[in-house]
Amino acid sequence: MSIWNIPPLSDERTTELQHRIDRKTKPPGSLGRLETLALQIGRIQGTTSPQLQNPAMLVFAGDHGITAEGVSPYPSEVTAQMVLNFLGGGAAINVFCRQHGIVLKVVDAGVASDLPEHPELVQAKVRPGTRNFLHEPALTAEEVTTALERGAALVRELRDSGSNVIGFGEMGIGNTSVAAALMQRLTGIPIADCVGRGTGLDDAGLAKKCEVLGNALERHAKAREPLEVLATFGGCEIAMMTGAMLEAAQSGMLLLVDGFIATAAFLVAFQMHPEILDYAVFAHQSDEQGHRRLLEFLRAEPLLKLGMRLGEGTGAALALPLAQSAVAFLNEMSSFESAAVSDRSDGD
Amino acid sequence: MSIWNIPPLSDERTTELQHRIDRKTKPPGSLGRLETLALQIGRIQGTTSPQLQNPAMLVFAGDHGITAEGVSPYPSEVTAQMVLNFLGGGAAINVFCRQHGIVLKVVDAGVASDLPEHPELVQAKVRPGTRNFLHEPALTAEEVTTALERGAALVRELRDSGSNVIGFGEMGIGNTSVAAALMQRLTGIPIADCVGRGTGLDDAGLAKKCEVLGNALERHAKAREPLEVLATFGGCEIAMMTGAMLEAAQSGMLLLVDGFIATAAFLVAFQMHPEILDYAVFAHQSDEQGHRRLLEFLRAEPLLKLGMRLGEGTGAALALPLAQSAVAFLNEMSSFESAAVSDRSDGD
Repeated sequence: MSIWNIPPLSDERTTELQHRIDRKTKPPGSLGRLETLALQIGRIQGTTSPQLQNPAMLVFAGDHGITAEGVSPYPSEVTAQMVLNFLGGGAAINVFCRQHGIVLKVVDAGVASDLPEHPELVQAKVRPGTRNFLHEPALTAEEVTTALERGAALVRELRDSGSNVIGFGEMGIGNTSVAAALMQRLTGIPIADCVGRGTGLDDAGLAKKCEVLGNALERHAKAREPLEVLATFGGCEIAMMTGAMLEAAQSGMLLLVDGFIATAAFLVAFQMHPEILDYAVFAHQSDEQGHRRLLEFLRAEPLLKLGMRLGEGTGAALALPLAQSAVAFLNEMSSFESAAVSDRSDGD
Repeated sequence: MSIWNIPPLSDERTTELQHRIDRKTKPPGSLGRLETLALQIGRIQGTTSPQLQNPAMLVFAGDHGITAEGVSPYPSEVTAQMVLNFLGGGAAINVFCRQHGIVLKVVDAGVASDLPEHPELVQAKVRPGTRNFLHEPALTAEEVTTALERGAALVRELRDSGSNVIGFGEMGIGNTSVAAALMQRLTGIPIADCVGRGTGLDDAGLAKKCEVLGNALERHAKAREPLEVLATFGGCEIAMMTGAMLEAAQSGMLLLVDGFIATAAFLVAFQMHPEILDYAVFAHQSDEQGHRRLLEFLRAEPLLKLGMRLGEGTGAALALPLAQSAVAFLNEMSSFESAAVSDRSDGD
């Protein structure tokens, strides 16, 4: 199944955009990464005057059967508790979204327990936690399709309300294990390089996580296609994020991809539609070791490296002002001509 | 001369601050660099509820006699032209200050030409450009004192108007040469590792810059004390920034140190009063190669690495939201107790 059609970015505006960037009152290239960002956003929007409008953050939450194997130092209940914390406004992602004027949507993609109704909670539960992928596939193909479609529908709503930039975050105890398994199978990188300490495993815990994942990967050796791999190792929140990302790219929006888990969801989308890469900004390189390798695999240069490993979309939220700076310099800086500043070609 | 008295940061609040950080609803340490920032700002302000108020940006401009030796691809006139561009609101630093609500003060510390009166230009010219330090010291001791004091006075004004966080930036054609000479003499790092391409020298230009600076360092082999070194290689804008930084630290303000030139000014202050390090955040590691080495020398970890090399305070302006995020999570996030989220100690 693939209902998406992501257009490769056109080069139509590239020369014009690059010229506009180069005529700004600064030495060529001296705004570094902001210049490539400005070019990327301009190409996505097909204009030399791009705008980032109504930034939104989608935080998908889900639980994972694999936690029964003791792969996280935190109990599964924390997923639901943290969702309530998001709804109460007290989590890190709430703080950063408030700071930057980002509309936050918290999505129950597959939390194990029933969550109370709340005006700010999007009820999109595919199932109450996934199956334990050490023993059986975490999700069925139908469940994956449902998750993808619900993620896409959320993005359409945001797009229709005028948003053109979306951050992608998640919450799910155990989901670094899911991400590591997805990454191993879809990239071929050895599992030991995909696994990290997650929320804080000690050495023994890390060894156990590695062993559990190694066994699971062996059991499901035949799963190779992106959506099959996604169903096998699961993550309702990851699958819903994959669908949301695909829809956002198809809609010509800018994707702010958060940390390790969000990048794993992106990886699934990328294996289906490589063109999605042009629409993505990798916000923050997580301290989770697999993330660096995964970004290398995608040839992606993260904007921030702050040693964070929290998820929730926090890296994406912190990166938004940089994307806004890129757009702002492109639209607001004067040119050598307009400011009567001598370019180097005037010098001796 | 040293009129400053910078108190080393007290450890009085450290335990309390660290506890407050660790009880936030997140795995310990998972906000990475934001956590060390929050701790630093809390210690500077001596409180577990720090606030960043009325952020300001001081951009010091000056010209340099050494440009007569052809060390920059841009003519000296660009310094004054860029000051006018700042005053017109069209430079990168204007854009980023507007974006983040930073009050911008543009300071004529030593621009070669006369600048028109302008309500937003601080007239503090020490002299119209420095002497050519290939032949003689760039500044006299008295000129350095004047520059330091004028920089300090500007900071007192900002402090008295309620600011407690200041970004430091600069504009001055030729000042990467000054910064490289200061760095070489004050750190002992070989000149070839201190010199970079500045605003865009080619290989031949880079070799020439290196040779000019090598000769100048040899001529002034006896200058060793920080203020003597500062006078020798100069930079009215650098000296004024040094004074401003010392005064800001003494006033218990947070310093956002921009790129290579600002870090060179900081280095002079650091050699006089090493305690200043506790008050500084190094905003952005410049693409100018000397900067990485200089930050290593200071054992400083820059917040951002965006491949920029523009100066003007642009890195400092882009880093402000991260400092604000650090303060915001400390003040606004709920704790495990207040949010009823299970800590890992509850897990199995």
